[in-house]
Amino acid sequence: MLQTGLNWSALLERNGHALRASAIRDLLAVTERPDMISFAGGLPAPELFPTALRAAFDAVLRDDAAGALQYGPTPGYGPLRELVAERLGRRGIACTAGDVVITTGSQQALHLLGRVLAGRGTVLVESPSYVGALQAFSAAGVSIVHCPMDEHGLRADALPGAAALLYTVPTFQNPAGTTMALRRRRELVVRARELGLPLVEDDPYSELRFDGEPVPALRALPGGEDVVHVGTFSKVLSPGLRVGYVVAPRPVAERVVLAKQGADLHTESVAQRAVVRFCRDQDLDAHVLTLCAAYRERRDAMLAALAGAMPPGTRWTRPEGGMFVWVTLPAGLEAVPLLAAALERGVAFVPGTAFHVDGGGGGSLRLNFTNSPPETIREGVARLARALDRLAG
Amino acid sequence: MLQTGLNWSALLERNGHALRASAIRDLLAVTERPDMISFAGGLPAPELFPTALRAAFDAVLRDDAAGALQYGPTPGYGPLRELVAERLGRRGIACTAGDVVITTGSQQALHLLGRVLAGRGTVLVESPSYVGALQAFSAAGVSIVHCPMDEHGLRADALPGAAALLYTVPTFQNPAGTTMALRRRRELVVRARELGLPLVEDDPYSELRFDGEPVPALRALPGGEDVVHVGTFSKVLSPGLRVGYVVAPRPVAERVVLAKQGADLHTESVAQRAVVRFCRDQDLDAHVLTLCAAYRERRDAMLAALAGAMPPGTRWTRPEGGMFVWVTLPAGLEAVPLLAAALERGVAFVPGTAFHVDGGGGGSLRLNFTNSPPETIREGVARLARALDRLAG
Repeated sequence: MLQTGLNWSALLERNGHALRASAIRDLLAVTERPDMISFAGGLPAPELFPTALRAAFDAVLRDDAAGALQYGPTPGYGPLRELVAERLGRRGIACTAGDVVITTGSQQALHLLGRVLAGRGTVLVESPSYVGALQAFSAAGVSIVHCPMDEHGLRADALPGAAALLYTVPTFQNPAGTTMALRRRRELVVRARELGLPLVEDDPYSELRFDGEPVPALRALPGGEDVVHVGTFSKVLSPGLRVGYVVAPRPVAERVVLAKQGADLHTESVAQRAVVRFCRDQDLDAHVLTLCAAYRERRDAMLAALAGAMPPGTRWTRPEGGMFVWVTLPAGLEAVPLLAAALERGVAFVPGTAFHVDGGGGGSLRLNFTNSPPETIREGVARLARALDRLAG
Repeated sequence: MLQTGLNWSALLERNGHALRASAIRDLLAVTERPDMISFAGGLPAPELFPTALRAAFDAVLRDDAAGALQYGPTPGYGPLRELVAERLGRRGIACTAGDVVITTGSQQALHLLGRVLAGRGTVLVESPSYVGALQAFSAAGVSIVHCPMDEHGLRADALPGAAALLYTVPTFQNPAGTTMALRRRRELVVRARELGLPLVEDDPYSELRFDGEPVPALRALPGGEDVVHVGTFSKVLSPGLRVGYVVAPRPVAERVVLAKQGADLHTESVAQRAVVRFCRDQDLDAHVLTLCAAYRERRDAMLAALAGAMPPGTRWTRPEGGMFVWVTLPAGLEAVPLLAAALERGVAFVPGTAFHVDGGGGGSLRLNFTNSPPETIREGVARLARALDRLAG
């Protein structure tokens, strides 16, 4: 029997998001053991990182070393801001380079927006919501309130009243895998305008669509011009580069730049240039299609394995893209004790409580399917089923 | 006559550090005009960036692309933490890799320390103090109090009582260029322990010593084990890489890691590995000696030009290293109107008011000498002298 060395139940029960995030980090460290199959992290497949990034970095340091190695502008490298605006424009998000602020991953965008927009007010989030956003907003000293979702995404008709902002991952949500229906998106944009409620749309996954038709971003909808749109190159290119961005109405963008100046002066310059160089010399869209083909196969493997192995009463989402499946256990079963049993059997996941600040999510868990090949996914789900048998028995 | 297009006097008079920092940023943008000689930024000499960094990046992406492009650990790349601990150890700062947190430039270390240590309390800073630190601490919502300095650095005997932390740049201070004497350092460490006052030592410049004997870091002194030590590769290697670090007592380091996780997950991974690779394949100390030789010549050129051109009653510091000379104008002259006159004549600097939160520094200015070759420094000081003539006349 494997010893995990950590009391996950106690760790995850501790109060406070910093500690919750710390427990997840420790969990991810445990999952680096070679005998462990991890569905826990939100990691892309490393074997699919484009080898041409090496040539892109080298071209930057051959042609523009003095620029790349010197201090750079806080809002980001100009050509990268233009590239982001151009790529978003193709998806119906009208913006110019001046509306784009490059951030150190989209995590920094959330951190800065928490400070710039949230004040000491209330932040509305989905239920469940991305743990990194909960941590970023918690650090800004705000209170967080979960809003109800269903299989069509956030319920715009059930929003509480006044709040500092609403944070949503409308497409292939982390952790639930759900996508907000177009009708819901339209309702949300209208309702937010009525309430004077700033919307923060976190959109790391929407290019990773395997099936179905793309749904417009909130910011691309009529009346969505004031939506703050957050994106990243982490999921379509490489997370190690820490290149994200935020597109916001100009006064918000200016405040974000001032906050960023105090936070880290600017985002790493060689990586910013390497992204531009890669996109100029290679075909990022073709690379995304390669990712989608591989990830589709992995998602299908996970859905099929779950269908074959989960006990009656277990439910799960069927995402059309992204990186995650959200599993709801049969009534009476809890994910934290399941995790202990699962780690003993060599498979890891993140319990649903991590994605709530209100004690919710105890009967749910998040499974990542992008970081394991299909045969590993099948074995991992089989281990998970054995852990469930033990727990239920 | 050049048009600067900006009302600097009004901009710099505005309240709030974010706006002050914004004005400085706009000033730095103006200085990018090819006809402008800039003593304003704190920029290293780009022509001295080591060309071998290109090979270091390429080796990283040849040998460890999957590691460098994937998500990485929040406290930093393990071998880089070891390298920092080893380099600091050679300077008498005893620490292990576990005490080191890699940050996105030392600016992020200040930002995170402001949040972790400062609470809502008072932060003590030198007078003048680094503008980026003022901005980082202001953003944490604390009040800032300047402490008196003289030519030997901060006066430990004149510290106010209770505070959340004291921030100091003891060696080749930004902006004043002064170095805290060893006796003062010993007094400060003892006094801080008596007061229960956390010390944050920002040490970006001490390796850039042109003359005189090295003075131990506060953290290297007896009783200095609790000093929080902040450093960076920006001044000895490249600021574009955004690789800084903080060495702190373990409970502080753990809180910094948790805050960093919410702020940007981790620092860019390729650059972290490239620093390690560079230091393994090249001789960073030899590179620092090259920098010191070039910067010594530039400092000497600036000091000689000031001696030849400044009107009677002008005083300036004579730094033994670092990047800045601090000029105090003759009584009655102010640096903000001087800046307007200087920009018209094609030379830029940062007025002393930027380095104070209490309205001080009006008669002072900061000159950078590392970013211009000697002949440019001589011409820039001549332009400055003509601007002063105009103002005084």
